[in-house]
Amino acid sequence: MYKVSVIGATGYVGAEITRLLYEHRFFDISVLTSRSFKGDLFSDIYPSMKGMVDIVLEDMDIPSLCSSSDFVVTALPHGVSSRVVPMLLAKGARVIDHSGDYRFRNINTYLKAYKTDHSSPEYIEEAVYGLPELYREKIRETNLVSNPGCYPTCSILGMAPLLLNHIVSPEGMIISAASGVSGAGRSEETDLSFCETDSTFKPYNPVGHRHTPEIEQEFSLLYGQEISLTFTPHLIPMKRGMLCTIYADLIDSSIGISSIENIYRDAYDDEYFVRFLGHGRLPQTKSVSGSNFIDISFDINRDTGKIIIFSALDNLGKGAASQAVQCLNIMAGFEEEEGLKKPSLYI
Amino acid sequence: MYKVSVIGATGYVGAEITRLLYEHRFFDISVLTSRSFKGDLFSDIYPSMKGMVDIVLEDMDIPSLCSSSDFVVTALPHGVSSRVVPMLLAKGARVIDHSGDYRFRNINTYLKAYKTDHSSPEYIEEAVYGLPELYREKIRETNLVSNPGCYPTCSILGMAPLLLNHIVSPEGMIISAASGVSGAGRSEETDLSFCETDSTFKPYNPVGHRHTPEIEQEFSLLYGQEISLTFTPHLIPMKRGMLCTIYADLIDSSIGISSIENIYRDAYDDEYFVRFLGHGRLPQTKSVSGSNFIDISFDINRDTGKIIIFSALDNLGKGAASQAVQCLNIMAGFEEEEGLKKPSLYI
Amino acid sequence: MYKVSVIGATGYVGAEITRLLYEHRFFDISVLTSRSFKGDLFSDIYPSMKGMVDIVLEDMDIPSLCSSSDFVVTALPHGVSSRVVPMLLAKGARVIDHSGDYRFRNINTYLKAYKTDHSSPEYIEEAVYGLPELYREKIRETNLVSNPGCYPTCSILGMAPLLLNHIVSPEGMIISAASGVSGAGRSEETDLSFCETDSTFKPYNPVGHRHTPEIEQEFSLLYGQEISLTFTPHLIPMKRGMLCTIYADLIDSSIGISSIENIYRDAYDDEYFVRFLGHGRLPQTKSVSGSNFIDISFDINRDTGKIIIFSALDNLGKGAASQAVQCLNIMAGFEEEEGLKKPSLYI
Amino acid sequence: MYKVSVIGATGYVGAEITRLLYEHRFFDISVLTSRSFKGDLFSDIYPSMKGMVDIVLEDMDIPSLCSSSDFVVTALPHGVSSRVVPMLLAKGARVIDHSGDYRFRNINTYLKAYKTDHSSPEYIEEAVYGLPELYREKIRETNLVSNPGCYPTCSILGMAPLLLNHIVSPEGMIISAASGVSGAGRSEETDLSFCETDSTFKPYNPVGHRHTPEIEQEFSLLYGQEISLTFTPHLIPMKRGMLCTIYADLIDSSIGISSIENIYRDAYDDEYFVRFLGHGRLPQTKSVSGSNFIDISFDINRDTGKIIIFSALDNLGKGAASQAVQCLNIMAGFEEEEGLKKPSLYI
Repeated sequence: MYKVSVIGATGYVGAEITRLLYEHRFFDISVLTSRSFKGDLFSDIYPSMKGMVDIVLEDMDIPSLCSSSDFVVTALPHGVSSRVVPMLLAKGARVIDHSGDYRFRNINTYLKAYKTDHSSPEYIEEAVYGLPELYREKIRETNLVSNPGCYPTCSILGMAPLLLNHIVSPEGMIISAASGVSGAGRSEETDLSFCETDSTFKPYNPVGHRHTPEIEQEFSLLYGQEISLTFTPHLIPMKRGMLCTIYADLIDSSIGISSIENIYRDAYDDEYFVRFLGHGRLPQTKSVSGSNFIDISFDINRDTGKIIIFSALDNLGKGAASQAVQCLNIMAGFEEEEGLKKPSLYI
Repeated sequence: MYKVSVIGATGYVGAEITRLLYEHRFFDISVLTSRSFKGDLFSDIYPSMKGMVDIVLEDMDIPSLCSSSDFVVTALPHGVSSRVVPMLLAKGARVIDHSGDYRFRNINTYLKAYKTDHSSPEYIEEAVYGLPELYREKIRETNLVSNPGCYPTCSILGMAPLLLNHIVSPEGMIISAASGVSGAGRSEETDLSFCETDSTFKPYNPVGHRHTPEIEQEFSLLYGQEISLTFTPHLIPMKRGMLCTIYADLIDSSIGISSIENIYRDAYDDEYFVRFLGHGRLPQTKSVSGSNFIDISFDINRDTGKIIIFSALDNLGKGAASQAVQCLNIMAGFEEEEGLKKPSLYI
Repeated sequence: MYKVSVIGATGYVGAEITRLLYEHRFFDISVLTSRSFKGDLFSDIYPSMKGMVDIVLEDMDIPSLCSSSDFVVTALPHGVSSRVVPMLLAKGARVIDHSGDYRFRNINTYLKAYKTDHSSPEYIEEAVYGLPELYREKIRETNLVSNPGCYPTCSILGMAPLLLNHIVSPEGMIISAASGVSGAGRSEETDLSFCETDSTFKPYNPVGHRHTPEIEQEFSLLYGQEISLTFTPHLIPMKRGMLCTIYADLIDSSIGISSIENIYRDAYDDEYFVRFLGHGRLPQTKSVSGSNFIDISFDINRDTGKIIIFSALDNLGKGAASQAVQCLNIMAGFEEEEGLKKPSLYI
Repeated sequence: MYKVSVIGATGYVGAEITRLLYEHRFFDISVLTSRSFKGDLFSDIYPSMKGMVDIVLEDMDIPSLCSSSDFVVTALPHGVSSRVVPMLLAKGARVIDHSGDYRFRNINTYLKAYKTDHSSPEYIEEAVYGLPELYREKIRETNLVSNPGCYPTCSILGMAPLLLNHIVSPEGMIISAASGVSGAGRSEETDLSFCETDSTFKPYNPVGHRHTPEIEQEFSLLYGQEISLTFTPHLIPMKRGMLCTIYADLIDSSIGISSIENIYRDAYDDEYFVRFLGHGRLPQTKSVSGSNFIDISFDINRDTGKIIIFSALDNLGKGAASQAVQCLNIMAGFEEEEGLKKPSLYI
C-alpha cells in the first residue's frame, strides 16, 4: 500500500482522482487539501462519497503532507504549480502535476502560451510528459510527471501511429474538437451555469488555445519535424466527454483501408486503454465517459485525399484523473490497469 | 467463482447486470441471451464494454444455459418470466427474476395489476422478495428471488422505519415520484425519443401504476395493517435516477427531529447501501446514479403535521441491477458489498 | 403605442419581458436598466436579440426613466422593490413589480416569510395581485400590479375551480412541484452550474419556501376559509418549465369525472391562456414553455378518495414575464392576448 | 390572405411550418396531411398548439388539397416528392418541397447521392434552390422551390462571401459540422431514444453524407470552379441547432481582419436574417434556435494560414421550415421578414 495525497481535491479533477484512489486496492488516500472548503468533509462537497471518503479537507501544509505521503497529486492552477511542486519534490514526494507548468520542453513555449512567469524552469527537464502509451519507461523512473492536457491526450493518441509512420502530410492538419462542460472545471461563472450552457453548442478560443502548442510539441516529436496545426475547441451541452475530429492529408491518397487499420493495430493492440475500433465503427463519448479508455477510428475521403481520425475520451478520465492513476500505477510498480478496468456506464 | 447467465442481456437492466458481473471478482459471466441481437457481440450493442465483454449473444436454450450456470438472472417481460422461470428452476439454476411475476404474495393482486395470465402461480410462495434490507435471510436460502420494482424499492426503504414504528398514520400517504428515462427500458417508442423527452417534465400513469399494489403490499406488511396509498410517477429529462417524495401524517405531530433521526439511524446504521443523510441534508439522484446506494432524508412541516420523506436511488442500480447483484452475493455466501463498493460519478 | 421600461433587464425575467415587448405591436421599449452591464448593449448579453434590441443598458435614473415611460416593469430583488416602486409611482409611472414585496395582503406574512424590512407597507393595499384570471378588473384600474410567483400562479390556477366550488377538503392539500433551473435566476452560484445541475433531480426548501404563504393566501381567499398546506419544490435538469402535482381529498369521493370536467370548463372556457385538457390527457412542461399558456388536468384515485391535479406553465412565461405582459395589456386597454398568441416550440 | 397546405404535417419540419403559418398574419392553414395520424387533430400530436391548430389531419388527396390551396409545402421523403410534386404542380399549386429530389442541377449527382430513382427529372430545371439570399428573384417567379438542406444552408451562407470574392483556395476546404437531434426527424429508432442520445457526442456519415454534393454544387457555382470538399457531421445532445465550423486556406494569408469583415458586411448588411457578428464574437446555436436567423463569424490562424468560419442556425428554422416561410413570403409578394421577426428564446 502506498499513501497518496491530493492538493486541490475539490476541483473536478482532484475529486475524480480521489474517487479513483478510493476504489484502488493498493493506494490509500492520505491528505486531501482544499482552499475553499477547509474543515469540511470531502463527502460534504461530493455527497456521492458519503460513507466512503469522509475525510476532513485541510489547508496545504507541505511538510506534514509530504511526511504522510508517498505520492502527491497536484490539481492546481498553472503558475501555482511551478511554486508548489519544487517544495514537494524537496520533501521527497513523487509528484503528478496537472497544470500546464511542466508540459513544455521549451520554457519559451510555456511563457508565450500561458502569459505568466514560471517559478521553477529548472524542473522542466526532469518532468516527464505523463502519457504512458508514449513515455511509459520514463514515467516509471521519474519523480515528476506532468499530466498532459485533455485535448492533447485525445489528439496525440488519435494521431500517433499516423505521425510516426509518416502516413499523413505534416502540413495542414486540423483538429476540430469538442468537450463536455466539466473541462472548464468547478466554476462560479455565469457562462457555465446550466441555463447558459444547456441546449447549445459553441466554439471557444478558436485561435490560440493553450493546448495548441502542447499538441504541436508532441506531434512534432512523433513526426520528427516541426508541425504547426489548427485546433478549434467547442463546448458540448453535457458534463463529461471529449471528441477530436482530426483532418489530415494522406501522403499516398490511394493507401488501403486495411493498411491504416494495420498501422493502428500494430500500435495499439497491446495497449489496454486504447481501443482501435476498426474502420466502419465510430467512437462516441459515452462509450468512454467515466473510464480510462480512449476509442479511436477513422475514415478516408477519396475525393479529397483526406483521412479523418476520430478519438474519444473522458476529459476528466483518460484526459486527466484516470490517466494520472495510470501513471501512479507505473510509478508504483503496479500493473498499469490496476483499479482502472472499469467501463463507462453507457446508459 | 460462480457462473452467472443473463437472459435478456441487451435491455438496460440486463446490460447493467452484465456490467456489474464483469466487474465482480467472484462471478463469471457464462451465457448472455438476446432475442433481438443473437449472434452479435454484447460489446457491439454496448461498445463501452469492448475488450471486456466480447461475448456472443445467444438464443435462450434453457438446458444448455442451465448446465453452464450456477445462477440465472432473468430480465424478461412480465408474463414471460412465469413461463421461463419454472424451467430454469427445474434444471437446477438459482434464479433472480426482474419481472413482476413473482412479486405479489396474492396472485389476484398480480392478475388485477398486470391484466395477464400467470403460468406458474405455484412458485409465488417460494419466491422471496429481493429486498435484502428486509428479507436478507430468506434470500440466502431460496432458489427464486423476485427482484422488486424500482419505485417500490425506493419507497419501501424510505418509509420502512416509520412504518415499522408506527410513526405515521397508515392513511393518506402520498408518494410523488420521478424517474429518469431509462426506467422505460430500451425502447423504439417515439415518445421516448430524445426530441420528445428532453427539456420537459411530465406525469404518467397517475392512477393505477403497477407499482402501486407492490408498494401497498410491503407497506401493509411493515405496518401490520392494510394500507392504500396514492402513487404518482413523473418522467425526468435525464437517463438514470429516481426520487420519491413521500408525504405522511405524523401520529404525534410534536415528535422531535432527533427522534426521527434516531429511528432511521437504528434501522440503517448497519446497512451499507442505505445512507440516512440526517435532517438538513437532502438527497439528489446524481449522488447515487450508477451505484447501489439509496440516500434518505426527511423534513417536518409543523403547520400541517406532515412529515416529508425523500429517498433517491438509481432505477437501474439499487432499483434493479445492482440490487440483483446484492442478492446474488447473499445467495452465493459472499459479502453483501462485494463488487458494489463503488460511488456514483456525481460529475 | 405605449412606452415601457424595464428595471433589471438582464436578469432572466427582465430579459424575457424585453423579448416580449420587442415582439409586441403596441408597446415600445423605452429604457432598459442593468446594474451589472451598464453601457453594454442588451444584445451583447442576449445575442439572440442582435439587430432587434440593440439598446444601451443604463443605470436606474428614476426621474429620467419615468419621464419617458408610461409603464415600468421592475425585476428587482425583494426588499429593493419596496424602496424603488414608491418613487416610480410618485413620478406617475404605472408599475408591474416582480418581487415578493407587494404580494401579501398582510404585511406580517411578508415579514415572516422574507425575513427583511419593508420600506413601503402603505402601498400593499393599493397593489393588485397580478393574476388576470382572478383579478382582471382590479388590474385594469390600478397603478401597481404585484406579479405573482411562478409556483403560486401554477398552483392557484390549477386549483381555483375546485376551491371556489368546495370540491376538495380545505385540509391536507399537498403541492409537489418541480421547476426548471431558470427559476433560480441568472446566477453565479456553483450550485447552478451545468455540471452540478445536469442529469440530477432534487428537492429544495421542502418546508418554509416563500411561495407557501403566497399560495395559502390565495387558496384561503378562494375557499373562504384559512388554509394551511404542504408545498415541496424540486429542481428539474432543464431550463424552463414548471409542473405542480397537487393532491387533495375529495369531499364527495364518488363525484363523477365529468362533474369535475364541467367545473373546470365553466371556469376556464373563456380564458384564452388556461387550457383545461380534459380527463385522460396530462400536461407536460414543454407544451407551454416559452408561452403564456397554462395546461391543466386531473385524475382521481378512487381507492384513496384523492384527486390529483396537474398544472404546467413556463416559470419565466405565465409564471413571470408573459403574465406581466398580459397584465400590461389589461392596464393599457388592449386585448389580453395581444402579443401573446404564440405557442411553445414543443420540439 | 393566401391558403397554404402542408403534406407531412406531423414530422418535425412539417409541424414547424404549421406553427409558423399559424403565427403568420397573411397565410391561412388549409389542409394538413399525415399518413400516420389521419383523423387525429394536429394538436393531439403537438399539444402545444391546442386551441390554436385544432385541425383534423387528412390523407393526402391531391385534387381536393390543391383546390383549396394557393401554396403547398411538402415534407416528404426523397423519392416520394418526385412522384407527388408534379401532380401538385399540374393542379396549379405553387410548391415548396423539402426533399432532396429537386436540389441538384445534375440528375446524376442526385442518383449517385440518393441511390434511388427519380420520377420527374424534367422538373429539375424548373426548380429553384430555395436560398433567398442567393436566389431571391428566381424564387419570386417559380412555381417550384426546392428547399435546401440544413447543413448546406449553414455552410453556403457561411462561405458565400469568401467564395464569391475568391478569398480562399478552392481546394482543401473542410466543414466540421454538428446538429441537434431533431435533424434526424420524428423517429422510432432506438438510436435516437433519449437514453442512447443524451450526454454523448458522436460523428456520423463521415464520408458520403448526402449533403456533401449539395454543398459542393453551390460552392462551385459561387466560386466559378468545380469544388470538392470534406464534410463531417456530428450529433449534439440537444434538440435544435446546428453549427458549421469551416476551415479554408486563405489565398492571401496576410489579409487583414477588417478586410474580411468588410467582405461579410458588404454581402450581408441588407440581409435581415444573416447576422455577421464581427471578429471576436462567436456564434452559438441557442442564439438562433427557434428563429430564422443565421449567425456568422470567423477567426484567422496566422501560423497556418487558415481562416475558420463559424455559422449557426436552427436546423428546423433557417435550415428548413422558417426558410420555407421566407420563400413563401417572397413567392406571395409579402415582405420577406413577415411573420419571422422573432428571436430565439436564448434561455
